Amino acid sequence: MVPPNTFTGAQLDRAGPRRRDAAWVQERLHDPASRTLAVTRDGILVSGEEEPQLVRLPLELIPGGAGTTVLLGVEPDGSALFAVDVEHVHAHRPLTPGARVLGLREAGALLPQEVGGLAAYASALLGWHRTHAHCARCGAVTDVEDGGHVRRCPVCHGEHHPRTDPVVIMLVLDGDRVLLGRQPSWPRGRYSALAGFVEAAESLEEAVAREVLEEAGVTVRAPRYVSSQPWPFPSSLMLGFTAEYAGGEAAVLDGELEDVRWFTRAEVAAAAAAEASGTWEATDAGATLLLPPPLAIARRLLDGWLAGD
Amino acid sequence: MVPPNTFTGAQLDRAGPRRRDAAWVQERLHDPASRTLAVTRDGILVSGEEEPQLVRLPLELIPGGAGTTVLLGVEPDGSALFAVDVEHVHAHRPLTPGARVLGLREAGALLPQEVGGLAAYASALLGWHRTHAHCARCGAVTDVEDGGHVRRCPVCHGEHHPRTDPVVIMLVLDGDRVLLGRQPSWPRGRYSALAGFVEAAESLEEAVAREVLEEAGVTVRAPRYVSSQPWPFPSSLMLGFTAEYAGGEAAVLDGELEDVRWFTRAEVAAAAAAEASGTWEATDAGATLLLPPPLAIARRLLDGWLAGD
Ligand SMILES: [Zn+2]
Ligand SMILES: [Zn+2]
Repeated sequence: MVPPNTFTGAQLDRAGPRRRDAAWVQERLHDPASRTLAVTRDGILVSGEEEPQLVRLPLELIPGGAGTTVLLGVEPDGSALFAVDVEHVHAHRPLTPGARVLGLREAGALLPQEVGGLAAYASALLGWHRTHAHCARCGAVTDVEDGGHVRRCPVCHGEHHPRTDPVVIMLVLDGDRVLLGRQPSWPRGRYSALAGFVEAAESLEEAVAREVLEEAGVTVRAPRYVSSQPWPFPSSLMLGFTAEYAGGEAAVLDGELEDVRWFTRAEVAAAAAAEASGTWEATDAGATLLLPPPLAIARRLLDGWLAGD
Repeated sequence: MVPPNTFTGAQLDRAGPRRRDAAWVQERLHDPASRTLAVTRDGILVSGEEEPQLVRLPLELIPGGAGTTVLLGVEPDGSALFAVDVEHVHAHRPLTPGARVLGLREAGALLPQEVGGLAAYASALLGWHRTHAHCARCGAVTDVEDGGHVRRCPVCHGEHHPRTDPVVIMLVLDGDRVLLGRQPSWPRGRYSALAGFVEAAESLEEAVAREVLEEAGVTVRAPRYVSSQPWPFPSSLMLGFTAEYAGGEAAVLDGELEDVRWFTRAEVAAAAAAEASGTWEATDAGATLLLPPPLAIARRLLDGWLAGD
């Protein structure tokens, strides 16, 4: 049984229709039951060492110099949850005693499933505001609307929405072996699934075939969707596939990878077992396979393949 | 057998790695074998009445006042294919005798499958340039790079990529019935699949459940991906799903739909048969179902469901 994908499962009503009502959003901002998460460029504020918890602050504790505040939605207890960009205030004076910034990758690994989903959502939305203050159409500074889910241009009236960049990520399978690739910056021994951004006017299935051909020189057939995962670094949406090998000799073809190679199911299973038992070791030849980390959808795809899903 | 989705199947090597080489792109621009498609805000240039063909022009025929030129890729015969924005030149003096602008929806319906894919790709990429000349980060006018697949900011050095907005579109199934919705602007009798944009840091499966609950008040389980389709109006990527009805009373909940209702498989099959035989007629009560048009992925989902896929 493969666990749910990292950064999914936030327990929150995003309140899509209601957040268009500015008066309702203002009421939530002044409701003493409302809380806000606090986000910086590097991560999200948590407290507690052993079992970190997201810091949920009353909105009145946010100092005036803080950045954009967005409405995430309504929690199961009925209270509104916001997120605020404290990049420029937290460094000067911690917002609350004992709070520290936890990186988003660490948040995905350490926090409970649904809490990791909240952290990803807050980081993704505020990351968009941080890099999209201007209208792409005319260059003017835009206004925040709809609780932070829209930016509207006061000059050309263009309406701008948060950006989500679809990425296909795929296991190329040929019977009992799988094609994986390696980027030069990765830890020794690591290989992972091939991946790439979906391009303009391309179906997911076309993107899978194009990326595998561009990166590894092989053709595939029968792409099969498996699952998806938000990957807000800054705004990707990973779309996991398997595809059957159809032809060609696997070789590095573009500049992003330093190696592509086939691994047998036994090699992948041995790597998983070595990691689980703490006996994984890089050999001098660097040949022992290090699997992608548990928080990556690539690992879920490999675990699913090993489990025969 | 459900046909391939509209706007997929372009027969073209997008030349992703090579287009990063500015010298190579310049050579293709001056290669007499290279051709360009011509796009306006309203559609793409075609010639021929009965069987329209995309106009493929030598690049030297494009007048100086034309807009952005982008590299689409390399055609099967080895020649490069570009697309140019002729919005501001074609209206004054037709670029080539007999050429006319065919709307993109009509292109999807009238052109052969793979040619429709080319038209969608050219329109999507040039539509992005038309609305993204400025840096969203700092507001400066950006430069076109990588054959038109990147815009780079000369001030803050931000790199901007074409935008693709994932949209989930789903049939909610409950045994032998399907839940469809209707927008007020649609032709009389038309109902189609529920749909909505994927939000920040949301998996596709979460987006399916959220949209159905927001729009129709029902909960679903077991979302199952079916297929995808580019929908460049201006930059959507439709991700088709089915999901099983889990609970709740179907009702219109947000402002986008004027009705949601269950249709039986027999009603959907009768609507398809009436359309195929040309006997479809709106009743005075407006009750006869008009299916989504053949070019929509919603129709492919319904046809697949009828076929028992
Ligand atoms: Zn503007
Ligand atoms: Zn800039």
